[in-house]
Amino acid sequence: MAVLPPGYSIRRIEPRDYEEVVETLKVLTVVGDVTRAKFEETVEFWNNSTVKAGNAEIRAYNPHVIVNAEGRVVATGTVLIERKIIRNCGLVGHVEDIAVAKDQQGKQLGLLLIQYLTRLAHEAGCYKVILDCDEKNVGFYEKCGYRRCGVEMDHRL
Amino acid sequence: MAVLPPGYSIRRIEPRDYEEVVETLKVLTVVGDVTRAKFEETVEFWNNSTVKAGNAEIRAYNPHVIVNAEGRVVATGTVLIERKIIRNCGLVGHVEDIAVAKDQQGKQLGLLLIQYLTRLAHEAGCYKVILDCDEKNVGFYEKCGYRRCGVEMDHRL
Ligand SMILES: CC(=O)N[C@@H]1[C@@H](O)[C@H](O)[C@@H](COP(=O)(O)O)O[C@@H]1O
Ligand SMILES: CC(=O)N[C@@H]1[C@@H](O)[C@H](O)[C@@H](COP(=O)(O)O)O[C@@H]1O
Repeated sequence: MAVLPPGYSIRRIEPRDYEEVVETLKVLTVVGDVTRAKFEETVEFWNNSTVKAGNAEIRAYNPHVIVNAEGRVVATGTVLIERKIIRNCGLVGHVEDIAVAKDQQGKQLGLLLIQYLTRLAHEAGCYKVILDCDEKNVGFYEKCGYRRCGVEMDHRL
Repeated sequence: MAVLPPGYSIRRIEPRDYEEVVETLKVLTVVGDVTRAKFEETVEFWNNSTVKAGNAEIRAYNPHVIVNAEGRVVATGTVLIERKIIRNCGLVGHVEDIAVAKDQQGKQLGLLLIQYLTRLAHEAGCYKVILDCDEKNVGFYEKCGYRRCGVEMDHRL
């Protein structure tokens, strides 16, 4: 079973993670010109968005980081919880924006983060957790317990 | 260009749509035992969930119905707007829970609903709109202007 390296831990994103989260996300895609103020405002929005899960109020956005022994952010990812009518007014978790710093590959941080977010979503009551990925990452997500179930399609202007 | 049949219209879901929306969703998947109270509570939650798009506050959940000339719900679908850090603190639209009543096929209602939700999301500022579907529906979504871009994977307990 995979475990975090000594001194590493997982926690929610905080406003002070600005520089390191932005840097880490660049491994995944285009981040663009995100100022500290915009980052902090987004984290505040995420923290204030809730969703009712049974009788509990939980957070709709669950952005996390893995930090190393020195407290540096080395991976990030989130799970957004959506409320539906289908499946008995079911909840669905959407795992999004998974990125691991280039110099941290091989430590199973991606796997540990996915397992953490998946468990968080199921414990909140989600009947399923889904994610979209490139064909080349299917093998990795299968190791995380996911299986191929459909096609992702997009519309861009 | 596709247009709605005479007398048909598109509008947001309202609490009074309970029976007809639940019935319509059964075309898509298992709906389960959704009471009127649970439906109304979900619609209220959807109506109160907002997301900041530029300087405007818009709704995070955008559940819609197409109603026919007699006011009966004949199709339903939604687009959830997610706020991210990537892509310059970008917004992404997730098209979800598209269902057209069985006796209404062939009127292009699905196409019109998808186009409506896609436009709503782009006008709100989404840099992309995505959806997940079965392999067998890829051709339909291509007609709606979507293209295959990835693999959907799921985790169920
Ligand atoms: C599991 C995972 O992390 N999937 C990510 C998705 O969350 C992210 O938003 C997207 C960004 O790509 P984009 O910049 O082209 O929208 O890439 C991948 O699909
Ligand atoms: C574009 C579209 O409508 N996709 C739907 C998705 O929104 C819905 O939530 C799911 C329900 O399936 P489930 O009951 O197995 O979760 O089916 C399809 O993937």
